[in-house]
Amino acid sequence: MIYVNNSATTWPKPENVYQQVNEFFRNSALNPGRSGTSSLGISPVERKIFKVRKQLADLIGTKNYAQIIFTSGATHSLNIALKGILKQGDHVITTCLEHNSVLRPLKKLEKDRDIKITVISFDQQGYISPTTIEKAITERTRLIVTTHASNVIGTLVDLKKIGQLARQHSLIYLVDAAQSAGVFELDVKEMGIDLLALAGHKSLYGPAGIGALYVNPELELDTLIEGGTGTNSLSVEQPLAMPDKYESGTLNNLGIVGLGAGLEFINQIGMEKIREHELDLVKQLLEGLQKINGIKVYGPAVDKLRAPVVSLELTGMSAAELGHLLENKFEIRVRSGLHCAPLLHRALGTEERGLVRISFSYFNTKKEVEFILQSLAELAFRLERRQENE
Amino acid sequence: MIYVNNSATTWPKPENVYQQVNEFFRNSALNPGRSGTSSLGISPVERKIFKVRKQLADLIGTKNYAQIIFTSGATHSLNIALKGILKQGDHVITTCLEHNSVLRPLKKLEKDRDIKITVISFDQQGYISPTTIEKAITERTRLIVTTHASNVIGTLVDLKKIGQLARQHSLIYLVDAAQSAGVFELDVKEMGIDLLALAGHKSLYGPAGIGALYVNPELELDTLIEGGTGTNSLSVEQPLAMPDKYESGTLNNLGIVGLGAGLEFINQIGMEKIREHELDLVKQLLEGLQKINGIKVYGPAVDKLRAPVVSLELTGMSAAELGHLLENKFEIRVRSGLHCAPLLHRALGTEERGLVRISFSYFNTKKEVEFILQSLAELAFRLERRQENE
Repeated sequence: MIYVNNSATTWPKPENVYQQVNEFFRNSALNPGRSGTSSLGISPVERKIFKVRKQLADLIGTKNYAQIIFTSGATHSLNIALKGILKQGDHVITTCLEHNSVLRPLKKLEKDRDIKITVISFDQQGYISPTTIEKAITERTRLIVTTHASNVIGTLVDLKKIGQLARQHSLIYLVDAAQSAGVFELDVKEMGIDLLALAGHKSLYGPAGIGALYVNPELELDTLIEGGTGTNSLSVEQPLAMPDKYESGTLNNLGIVGLGAGLEFINQIGMEKIREHELDLVKQLLEGLQKINGIKVYGPAVDKLRAPVVSLELTGMSAAELGHLLENKFEIRVRSGLHCAPLLHRALGTEERGLVRISFSYFNTKKEVEFILQSLAELAFRLERRQENE
Repeated sequence: MIYVNNSATTWPKPENVYQQVNEFFRNSALNPGRSGTSSLGISPVERKIFKVRKQLADLIGTKNYAQIIFTSGATHSLNIALKGILKQGDHVITTCLEHNSVLRPLKKLEKDRDIKITVISFDQQGYISPTTIEKAITERTRLIVTTHASNVIGTLVDLKKIGQLARQHSLIYLVDAAQSAGVFELDVKEMGIDLLALAGHKSLYGPAGIGALYVNPELELDTLIEGGTGTNSLSVEQPLAMPDKYESGTLNNLGIVGLGAGLEFINQIGMEKIREHELDLVKQLLEGLQKINGIKVYGPAVDKLRAPVVSLELTGMSAAELGHLLENKFEIRVRSGLHCAPLLHRALGTEERGLVRISFSYFNTKKEVEFILQSLAELAFRLERRQENE
């Protein structure tokens, strides 16, 4: 089986992720972060959680590790950020590239808090123009929210430029890095990012059910979930100290350990090497696809830097059918459909038929790409023959 | 090491939990619940999630398995329930037994939506009187929320009586079963429960980071988190179908698999046998404690049915010190402090010094209880000597 649905969840995980999760679960997953078993101070579980928090802080270029909140995933992170920041009547600027994890909470806030939403379109290759964003800023604008990389067509957003804009206009900048963290460098300070949402189970190679949110220490967010924090327990008010304020309830410690192991793997291989490998595969795929009749690829040109995601269609065949054939005839697992990105598909005009998405991790190989190309060529050839016979 | 902090997190887990989590993580944790890899329909991951949803439905006596939502834990479940139900100016009745996972969201809603909260006190043994609850009902009352079992003193709440009350007065009844599910029978229909919050990592023997919420199909809850659901992806509105409406983002599939394995373990042993074993240990502990000078136990009388949790103090020594000595001299892991139950400790007058909590799982033994009793006797004896010498 060839698995190229890594933008959804990377699979397989590095061996050390499996090992560390299993080992921790068996030997150390006592109750974490609820001190008081002794006055000895920090427990092994708490130490581990602290360590992974620091690993994440290192990944995104901050020393404020207490500003990293563990969540149940990027969707949870984005909900905390959007609902924690946006108040009655605020204006927010976002883009056509966004996932439903941004769009749906915004729609909810439109109803609940009467916020105004401006959605910036992309150009032919899928790029967002910072100038267009700047033009959309009004007196009521409070937040800009963009993805770092499209989960469908792989376009990268110029975070640094938009971050500068946000600074200049005293706006808050929220970035969804679910598709980019672990592949592209992130630096919240240099890029002017105030809020950064991370998914553990994609290119950070952790398990599903874990994510994180970085919060600029100058920001005061409302809480989305309150509960026991193991701190200040005599008070029925949510504690204000970070990160406890946003981490109610027992944390997903297996997820945290797995994410930590994933980050170790990335450091060990080197992010640059991972990126180069995946982009080599993208290049090989894109060049091969150009030679197949009837294949149409969406997104940036072949020579442009992009996330390791390629979406395509075979003219005359629905994405569902193409995905089905790839899986059943060739055991290639792609993702066909709308990829939870409705505005993007509408902008491309592919909202009816969907697209087939191929997305790589470090574990995919040139040989696999070759096989994918051969398989697509065969399907295209057969389709052509079928059409001739009709 | 003797681990008796099972009310926080059960440890160890049954062997099949470790095995199934590891096996699933390595072999099957591809992207779940995001169909569209093919038109084949349901994937192995989706099948597994469906199966555990049914296991949970069986556990709580409902056939409406689609009304079981997976969450990141009981705290998340309780937040969805409370914030999904309570509207501006509503009145809610709760109890002194509650955990901060109930009290803190309520406090938040008091500020945000001006809800009114009535907190019912317990009697000397820690019992909540349904009559007192009934007396507190007003025209604005919308919700009653109680725990099933106190996480500190083990008192059980009469769910069925309160459920009947709720029905009679057309109120919604939310139960926090974090401390009871897996040990005591639950039947949402028979007990008249509309919303039931479950924790996966306690007496259901799953990992941390997974929980569930049952929602009566007649209820319409507001959503707390919106995002991608893999369904109806063209719409930027949150889908209304259950359980998707409340399950945005990629689910914690390792947590779900581990929870499923925990439920299998419970079925295999039998809930009655588990309960009897744990209550035998409680009885042995309580009877032994009566013979130790200076030990004071809080909660129900020895002959009363209770959850397998005992909280105690040694007169003249703080809970922190006692917990410290038990851990460091005897390698007994208890939980000392306030257990995230501030109103209970205030009602007992133990909010300054805290209590030491001993809580059992199926894996604790009579021999361990014996050792705990010996250790406490030794500490009590030494304290007495020290006090005599002073």
